[in-house]
Amino acid sequence: MDQQKVIVLGAGLVGSPIAADLARDKDLKVAVADISKENLSRIKPDNIHRIQVNLSRDKELRSLVADYDLVVNAVPGFMGFQTLKECIMMSKDVVDIAFYAEDVLSLSELAREKGVRVIADMGVAPGMSNLLVGYASSRLEKTENVEIYVGGLPKVRQKPWEYRAVFSPTDVIEEYTRPARLVEQGKIVTKPALTEVEQMNFEGIGTLEAFNSDGLRSLMFTVDAENMKEKTLRYPGYAEKVRLLADSGFFNLEKKEVEGQVITPLDFTSAILFDQWKLGEDEVDLTIMRVVVEGRSEGRQVRYTYDLYDERDLQTGVHSMARTTGYAATMATRLLLQGHYKQKGITVPEMIGSHHDLVMFMLSGLKDRNIVYREDIRTF
Amino acid sequence: MDQQKVIVLGAGLVGSPIAADLARDKDLKVAVADISKENLSRIKPDNIHRIQVNLSRDKELRSLVADYDLVVNAVPGFMGFQTLKECIMMSKDVVDIAFYAEDVLSLSELAREKGVRVIADMGVAPGMSNLLVGYASSRLEKTENVEIYVGGLPKVRQKPWEYRAVFSPTDVIEEYTRPARLVEQGKIVTKPALTEVEQMNFEGIGTLEAFNSDGLRSLMFTVDAENMKEKTLRYPGYAEKVRLLADSGFFNLEKKEVEGQVITPLDFTSAILFDQWKLGEDEVDLTIMRVVVEGRSEGRQVRYTYDLYDERDLQTGVHSMARTTGYAATMATRLLLQGHYKQKGITVPEMIGSHHDLVMFMLSGLKDRNIVYREDIRTF
Repeated sequence: MDQQKVIVLGAGLVGSPIAADLARDKDLKVAVADISKENLSRIKPDNIHRIQVNLSRDKELRSLVADYDLVVNAVPGFMGFQTLKECIMMSKDVVDIAFYAEDVLSLSELAREKGVRVIADMGVAPGMSNLLVGYASSRLEKTENVEIYVGGLPKVRQKPWEYRAVFSPTDVIEEYTRPARLVEQGKIVTKPALTEVEQMNFEGIGTLEAFNSDGLRSLMFTVDAENMKEKTLRYPGYAEKVRLLADSGFFNLEKKEVEGQVITPLDFTSAILFDQWKLGEDEVDLTIMRVVVEGRSEGRQVRYTYDLYDERDLQTGVHSMARTTGYAATMATRLLLQGHYKQKGITVPEMIGSHHDLVMFMLSGLKDRNIVYREDIRTF
Repeated sequence: MDQQKVIVLGAGLVGSPIAADLARDKDLKVAVADISKENLSRIKPDNIHRIQVNLSRDKELRSLVADYDLVVNAVPGFMGFQTLKECIMMSKDVVDIAFYAEDVLSLSELAREKGVRVIADMGVAPGMSNLLVGYASSRLEKTENVEIYVGGLPKVRQKPWEYRAVFSPTDVIEEYTRPARLVEQGKIVTKPALTEVEQMNFEGIGTLEAFNSDGLRSLMFTVDAENMKEKTLRYPGYAEKVRLLADSGFFNLEKKEVEGQVITPLDFTSAILFDQWKLGEDEVDLTIMRVVVEGRSEGRQVRYTYDLYDERDLQTGVHSMARTTGYAATMATRLLLQGHYKQKGITVPEMIGSHHDLVMFMLSGLKDRNIVYREDIRTF
C-alpha cells in the first residue's frame, strides 16, 4: 500500500505534536503548514514536510490541500470555520480541532454532498468528553444526568491567581463572560458563567472548584438527557477573584477614555493579566477531567464516571493541553485513514461513542500515549 | 467685643460644613473662599461671605487672608502645604486639615518667628486620634502600646467591594500602596500596606477587618511608646480583594502600551473603580474609630479605649467623614479664637492632649454635635 498523505494546518502548540505523533506511523507522509517560520522551525522530527503559507488565503489553501488524503485543521479559532469549509469544498476528509464559534453542523449538507468524512471538535473537551458521553449514553436505555468537569491548571500553585495557561487572557476571559448554556429537565437554560461554584475532590490533586461554563456545544443538540452541564475546574477561590474583576467592570467591552487615551477595559485587563496568567517556559500544566453519565439500564440506576489526570511530558516538552487535545485528534485521524469510521458528513465525537469498538480504539491509542481515562461503573 | 473674623479656604465637602458650623457662633464673621463657583453656591447659611478666588496664586491668597483673624486651611492636599506657609508668612493663626504629604513640623521655626498659633492635622484621623493618644499617654507614667483603628465605610454593604468613599480611587489606592510605618519596640519599622489583616468587632456594625496603613504621621516622633500602629478598617474580605489587584499589577505606575494607547495601570484602574467606589448622592457613610492606649500607672497596667461610631447627618446631608473631620477643626478653631490655647508655633493634636481641660472642651463640643467618643478605662 502507498503511503497516505496527511497535512496538518497550523504548527502551533497543538499542531506540532499532532504532526510529530502522526509522523511516528511508517505508512504516513506528514506535512505541516503555517504562516510562521518560527513555528515551523520548532517542528520535530525531520521527516515532516514544512510549508510556509498564509492559510487565510483561500486560493493558496486549496492548492495546498489538493495533494493530501486528509487534513487536520489546527488553525486559530478565528479562521477555523472558513478553513474547514474550504477543505470540504476540496473534497478532503478532515479532523478538526480549530474550536471556532460557528456551528459546525451547518456544514453537514455540504460535507455529505462532497462525500467527505469530517470529525469536528475532536480534542479533549470538546472532544473526548463528548465521545465518552456518547459512549456511556449508548449503554443506557435512558440518560438522566450528564456532567462534564474539565480544567487546565498549572501544577505549581502560585498566588494570587493559581492559574496559568498557554492561551491568551483575552480568550480565557471570553470563557468567563459568555453565558453558560446547560440542560435542565430537558430544556436548554442559560446561566451566567462562574456561577454555582462547588468544591470537588480529584485524585492526585485534591480539592478543586467547579463553576458553570459554556462547554456543552453539540451535546445540547445530539444527546437526549434530562440534565446536562459542563463546568470549568480551577483551584479553589478562583471564580470569586475573576468575578471581582467582572463585576467591577474590568472585562467591559465599551471603550473608555482615561487621561486622553481611549481603550477597552477588556484589552487593558488582558494586557495586565498576561504576565500573571502566562504559563512559564518550564512550567508543568495539568489537565483534569471528569465525565459523569447517569441513567437507567435494565431497571437499575447506573452511573459511569471517567477520570483523566494528565501532566506535561517533560521529556518532549509537550504541554498536557496539547497532549490531551492533539492525541485525541491523531487517534481520530487514524480512525479515518484506516477506514474504521465510514460515516460521510460532519461527525461530532459523541456520534463515535455509540461505536464501542471505535471507542476502544481511541482509548487504547491514548493509553499508549499515557493518557488514561479511568472508568468507574456503579449500579444502584 | 468686636466680631472675630474667620476665613475657610476651600469650600469642598469638609470646608462647607466647617463654615456652616462656625457661622452658628453669633460672635464670628465667617467667609469661605474657593475657585469653584459651584462649590460656593452650595454654602449654607446665607450669613457666610463667599469669595471666588484662585487660592494657588500666592499674591491673591495673601491679600485675601490679610483681613482675617484666623484661617481654616481646607484646600486639597496637593496645595495644602504651600497655602499654610503663606498664611504663616502673613502672621495668621491657622487650623489646618489639608493633609498634605509634607512634614508640617518643618514650619515650626517660621511659625514661632511669626508668633502664630497653628494647629495642624486637626481632623478625625489624623486629628482626634492623635489628641486622644496624647491625652491617654499624658495620664500614664509609661506608654507601652498605641493602636489606632479607623475607617470610613458605606452603611449599606454592596458586593463585590462593600466600600464607597467621597475620595477619588487614586487617593484611596495611594493609601494601599504606600508602605505603612509603625513603631515596634521603640523603633520605626516599615511593613507593606494591607498586611496583618485581623478581624475585630465594633458595636453597631459588627465584625470589621483591620490592616496596616501609614497613618501615624507625627505620632511616630512626638509620642514615646514601645509599640504604635495605625490600621484601616473595612468590611471583612476587602484587603484580599485589593491585594489581588495590587499583586496583579493593576496599581503599577509604569506606563503600558495597549492597542496603541499608552496608559498607566493605576490611572486605568482608578477610572474603572470610580463608579464602584463612589458614594452615591443619597448614600449614608459611617466613620468608625477605636483608639487604644495602654501603659503603666501607679504600678498597674491601664488601658484606655476610645470608640467612635458616626453616621452621615441625613437632615443636613453632611457626610460622616465631613462631620468628624470638620467639627474637630471647628472646635480647635474655637480653642484658638477663645484664647484657651496659647502655644505659638506648630501644634499637632497630641500636644493638646496633655491639656486635660482643652480635651474636655473638644470632646464636649463634639458631643454637642452628636459625635461621641466613648471612653473605657480598664486596670489590670
